[in-house]
Amino acid sequence: MTRLLIYGPSYRRIEAEVAAAAPGMDVLIMDEAGIIRLDGTEIALDAAAPNLAWANHEVFLSPAARTFFVTLLKAESLAWVQSAAAGFDNPAFGELVRKGAKLSTSHGQAIGMADYVMAGVLDHFQRGPERRAAQNAQVWWREGFREVSGTNWLIIGYGAIGQGVAQRAQAFGAKVVGVRRDSNASPFAERIVDLSALSEELPRADVVVLSIPLNARTRHIADAAFFRAMKAGSVLVNVGRGGLVDEAALLAALDAGLPEHAVLDVFETEPLPVDSPFWDHPRVSVTGHCSGVTGGENRRNQALFLDNLARFANGTPLLNVADPKDVFAARD
Amino acid sequence: MTRLLIYGPSYRRIEAEVAAAAPGMDVLIMDEAGIIRLDGTEIALDAAAPNLAWANHEVFLSPAARTFFVTLLKAESLAWVQSAAAGFDNPAFGELVRKGAKLSTSHGQAIGMADYVMAGVLDHFQRGPERRAAQNAQVWWREGFREVSGTNWLIIGYGAIGQGVAQRAQAFGAKVVGVRRDSNASPFAERIVDLSALSEELPRADVVVLSIPLNARTRHIADAAFFRAMKAGSVLVNVGRGGLVDEAALLAALDAGLPEHAVLDVFETEPLPVDSPFWDHPRVSVTGHCSGVTGGENRRNQALFLDNLARFANGTPLLNVADPKDVFAARD
Repeated sequence: MTRLLIYGPSYRRIEAEVAAAAPGMDVLIMDEAGIIRLDGTEIALDAAAPNLAWANHEVFLSPAARTFFVTLLKAESLAWVQSAAAGFDNPAFGELVRKGAKLSTSHGQAIGMADYVMAGVLDHFQRGPERRAAQNAQVWWREGFREVSGTNWLIIGYGAIGQGVAQRAQAFGAKVVGVRRDSNASPFAERIVDLSALSEELPRADVVVLSIPLNARTRHIADAAFFRAMKAGSVLVNVGRGGLVDEAALLAALDAGLPEHAVLDVFETEPLPVDSPFWDHPRVSVTGHCSGVTGGENRRNQALFLDNLARFANGTPLLNVADPKDVFAARD
Repeated sequence: MTRLLIYGPSYRRIEAEVAAAAPGMDVLIMDEAGIIRLDGTEIALDAAAPNLAWANHEVFLSPAARTFFVTLLKAESLAWVQSAAAGFDNPAFGELVRKGAKLSTSHGQAIGMADYVMAGVLDHFQRGPERRAAQNAQVWWREGFREVSGTNWLIIGYGAIGQGVAQRAQAFGAKVVGVRRDSNASPFAERIVDLSALSEELPRADVVVLSIPLNARTRHIADAAFFRAMKAGSVLVNVGRGGLVDEAALLAALDAGLPEHAVLDVFETEPLPVDSPFWDHPRVSVTGHCSGVTGGENRRNQALFLDNLARFANGTPLLNVADPKDVFAARD
């Protein structure tokens, strides 16, 4: 009998849908304290032996997170894990794939992240801090601002997130260049280029978005030379991974005025340490790795899990299965 | 000889273009102090007698504004005035049209205003104030936010500004209903409805944008009944005119929680009086009638003026000429 490991609070919302997608499956329910039950009876972590699991945000952010992953690592015939993340640089994912499990990722966060990028750029272009200061001071302030129309956007990592940003920016009249391996044209970009073209593209870009997977080639891709190549007045947005940015080089670059502003949702160390200079840097907007955290993300992740669960039960190919080569490369 | 009245600081930027568009025209140049010169010689206001004028933002916001309009009102054979505004509810425009002058408007501000609307809605949806408070307090804050995708937008006044908003919101996955007299379909809206449909549409709308001209029918269109009909959690944006909103009713409605937030760039009295409760209302974002103030707006206004000047010189029809009926209606 196939066993599914799922977090209790998540399971209670979709019990009927799970039964419909995979009738008769054994469901191992882990509670907030990390206790696993099968048909109401507690079962030892070593004896749980799940074949499938839904590793969603809810369990990942819960006190049971560590126990959940340990249970997966101990499972001898783990076949498939549905993640709620787009990336797979978390070392636990590499270990699961090395054990032979399929890892399927999710792009449920792409919509929220694209909104986040637009909000961050617009707030800087529209001089949000000065506007809010004027309101606080009850000053009728009629200064002008920058339009998005006609600006150049360089989106480094042109997957679901990057394309979501491009679609939105294009509707504002921006001109988008996307950076990805697959050189096929995109309806939302004027051009698609390879990473090797960065040094040519950076001097033209008013907005640079980092939304590329972290691996050996992309670690510290935004370094001192990268910042030196940026355009005067440009904005950097990082919604990818903290490791994409050489943080010491970024701080020096911001102090030199280039980029003009950075919108950072991810950092080399998370949570961002209290002594980080980013917190109160006047040219930096800090958020706590929340650029994709929306109700819509949870709905889409849940729908994808149920779809893939039905596919697993029916023996049809799963959606969004990560290539093990990419998963291992992310750990280099 | 045809005489063009133009503000000096504006004229100095486009002297060659004016000469190319309308060769041999007499140019009356008004300086910051309101002194008019023709070929370098000072000329009395009563003797200026302009036939054409460029009433742009630069002169409108300058100390010479009043003198500029008085000169136009005294001109006996005024044929055409190019405004930089989309609206014509300023009483001075009505008087110029009553004298027989053509008034041409501009949509140069539509791009900036559409950006402004998106920035205001995104900042509320993304919980900008809480994010900034978290950054100030150095708190790693991972709370979720609202996506634009799937939300309903009701755009009351579906001209250049409203369509600009619709195009952007649609790219985020919003569903747009536009309100205008002309019932033709729009590629950016699911439906176009008439003002009479407001009471049906308001309860569905997550975002309501006011971008309609002010006249007798639209004055205080957003009144107590309007706010009562709004949806829980909805956002109101006014980039039209302050007179569209019954401000006392809006304050009462905000205190009752509906709308959840208001983004206001225009007010019944401008500049907004220092004792207005809007300034420090926690549910209100106040800006100082600057939603269209961008470098792009000035470029587009200038290009339109030069285009229309050439059309006037060649005897071809001017662009964007306001219907006198609409101009008079705006004064009722």
